[in-house]
Amino acid sequence: MLLSPEESALRLARLTAPMTAAGIDIALIQDNATKFYLTGRVFSGHIAVNCRGMMHCFVRRPNHLDGPLHTSVRKPEEIPAKAPAGLFDGCSTLGMEFSTLSVSDFNRLMAIFPDLRPIDLSSAIREARRVKTLQEISLIARSGVLQTEVYALIPSLYRPGMNDMELQIEIERQLRLKGCLGQFRISGDSMELFMGNILVGDNADSPTPYDFAMGGAGISPSLPVGANGTVIAPGDSVMVDANGNFTGYMTDMTRTFACGTLAPLALKAHDVSIEICHTLADMARPGIKASALYETAAGIVKHAGLEEYFMGHRQKAGFIGHGLGIEINESPVIAPRSRDILEEGNVFALEPKFVIPGTGAVGIENTYCVSNQGAALPLTMAPEEILPLHS
Amino acid sequence: MLLSPEESALRLARLTAPMTAAGIDIALIQDNATKFYLTGRVFSGHIAVNCRGMMHCFVRRPNHLDGPLHTSVRKPEEIPAKAPAGLFDGCSTLGMEFSTLSVSDFNRLMAIFPDLRPIDLSSAIREARRVKTLQEISLIARSGVLQTEVYALIPSLYRPGMNDMELQIEIERQLRLKGCLGQFRISGDSMELFMGNILVGDNADSPTPYDFAMGGAGISPSLPVGANGTVIAPGDSVMVDANGNFTGYMTDMTRTFACGTLAPLALKAHDVSIEICHTLADMARPGIKASALYETAAGIVKHAGLEEYFMGHRQKAGFIGHGLGIEINESPVIAPRSRDILEEGNVFALEPKFVIPGTGAVGIENTYCVSNQGAALPLTMAPEEILPLHS
Repeated sequence: MLLSPEESALRLARLTAPMTAAGIDIALIQDNATKFYLTGRVFSGHIAVNCRGMMHCFVRRPNHLDGPLHTSVRKPEEIPAKAPAGLFDGCSTLGMEFSTLSVSDFNRLMAIFPDLRPIDLSSAIREARRVKTLQEISLIARSGVLQTEVYALIPSLYRPGMNDMELQIEIERQLRLKGCLGQFRISGDSMELFMGNILVGDNADSPTPYDFAMGGAGISPSLPVGANGTVIAPGDSVMVDANGNFTGYMTDMTRTFACGTLAPLALKAHDVSIEICHTLADMARPGIKASALYETAAGIVKHAGLEEYFMGHRQKAGFIGHGLGIEINESPVIAPRSRDILEEGNVFALEPKFVIPGTGAVGIENTYCVSNQGAALPLTMAPEEILPLHS
Repeated sequence: MLLSPEESALRLARLTAPMTAAGIDIALIQDNATKFYLTGRVFSGHIAVNCRGMMHCFVRRPNHLDGPLHTSVRKPEEIPAKAPAGLFDGCSTLGMEFSTLSVSDFNRLMAIFPDLRPIDLSSAIREARRVKTLQEISLIARSGVLQTEVYALIPSLYRPGMNDMELQIEIERQLRLKGCLGQFRISGDSMELFMGNILVGDNADSPTPYDFAMGGAGISPSLPVGANGTVIAPGDSVMVDANGNFTGYMTDMTRTFACGTLAPLALKAHDVSIEICHTLADMARPGIKASALYETAAGIVKHAGLEEYFMGHRQKAGFIGHGLGIEINESPVIAPRSRDILEEGNVFALEPKFVIPGTGAVGIENTYCVSNQGAALPLTMAPEEILPLHS
């Protein structure tokens, strides 16, 4: 879906303000997620945006593309000659996303524009994308509805004797049948994951290399995360954190299921997770510090005496929530030293989870939208209590 | 699987030779695919390799890791103080993979090592990984066997009235049940794909932004490639190019299926694809130029009068084959201006494909290993002829 002129102008204005504040005269954007943000589609090539709000796409592939404001190029070296009049006028600084642009591509662009001084565009992009437009929120909400529908099927997908991977495969299939794109966009190289993370029993206590909230050993050392072939047995928790990308925008939702009866400590921890989500959703209003949300959660956990298990046991995650949208790791970050302050239109996931030895992972995760009208709005709506897997 | 000391030494020697030739005294490796190559596993952190063959891992996560030659660090700034004696001795140049390292991470590493001169390590890594070890070839071969087993099931997954996405979902499920990791490792940002590409009928003629051989409109502008909801109808070709990553090493295989009877032109083009694969596999011996393989294929296509349809119709790909292993886009590249020369142990996919308007995509793709003993060895073994989808 090509963006409407109004939506395009709105997103462009979200970017030019922080660009100007950072002293960036013109930006060249190569990252697919940011291209999707600014144009509503992905192509190979670059988007140029100047601080006066002029935008133009230089498209290498595909060789047929509808819509205005773009020029075909075979390579970025053709950009200066093919740029529309005025685009680069008066520009002395060039913004590029240092957090995602490779050194090779940076060097190539600098050779094309040797007279422009490079400045990191990453913060301006994060700031632009942090406050979602109504259209973006509607796409996230639609993902949340579809993901919720799939989660309702999960208990019926279980068969006694299944292992974690077999259950995951049936969940993946239902997600795909419902329209899930499968793709899980992550900025940077600190996380890799296939369709989601299903953690059964003590596999939840296997540390991973990645910056996810939870772990799991995985089935291959090339992708050491998630399900590892554990047979689902009585007393195991089954935590499902599966891909919510149905629209190019993601929701993030985790629910915990039970095989048989879980240990009282695990049931208590799950209730504390729900309590944290409800408390923080009510607190999460414009102007609140993200760090204050974290501190409140940590206080609830401490009061419940569950610190040992919070956000992992053998290895702990340093955050309890994260912004998301086109990618799974956007602003704001809900962590002790986060400097983010909530604004209306922020969309973030909260995932206060516990790993209980002998049981596995418990807790929930929801995606919320920050509103001026009161508590943050949940966009993921499956029942929050632990549901039995077998009928 | 942690590498054996012998395998580790072999891979290290493959890297230190081109490092030395490039004047790189010490390399710092951050890319997950290269980490997996050198250690047999993925972790968060860096591998340091000096040109004398000393290797050490600096591990940020996970916080528990078995095996020798590693040190825990919280951040890369701790590397100098925690490095084992001798590692950085006499080093004045620092190699980093410019093709995958972000500008941010480059700047961070340069601030840690201000006295070292940066050199691009990318070519040395490509050269090291281009010739596979016997262990790597065995893992690729195992992926090929498992992928071939799944392809044998494809005709039985079809139900009349299905669309491309419904068939793809059933193929994905069978791949996953057979142990496919799902992950599709690609170096760089020129390609994005979920589990594979199923092209039915004229959707094969939809150009994509990506550097794949074939296209397809996809079901979302955020991932414009592959299946788009086309109902499979009589006269359509169904091209299946599905994920072959079962071992951390990939095979790449494409087969074409038919709904009803395909047009004679399509049947002819498919036979030409098979002819090209067989001819090139026989040619593909150590010392042969990759460009010569391309020219031979182009000659066969020209002789058959099929140039208009070769490697796409509305948009054409510029290559007919590519190296693969841990990632889908390794050396050698089989393209007109490739400077690669085949060596024993190269593993590459050949995909001479055609897009026939009114029918769709036809042709095959196989993964081959270059051998000193004769023709290149196919590692993907499903029947090559067009198979009917319905019984």
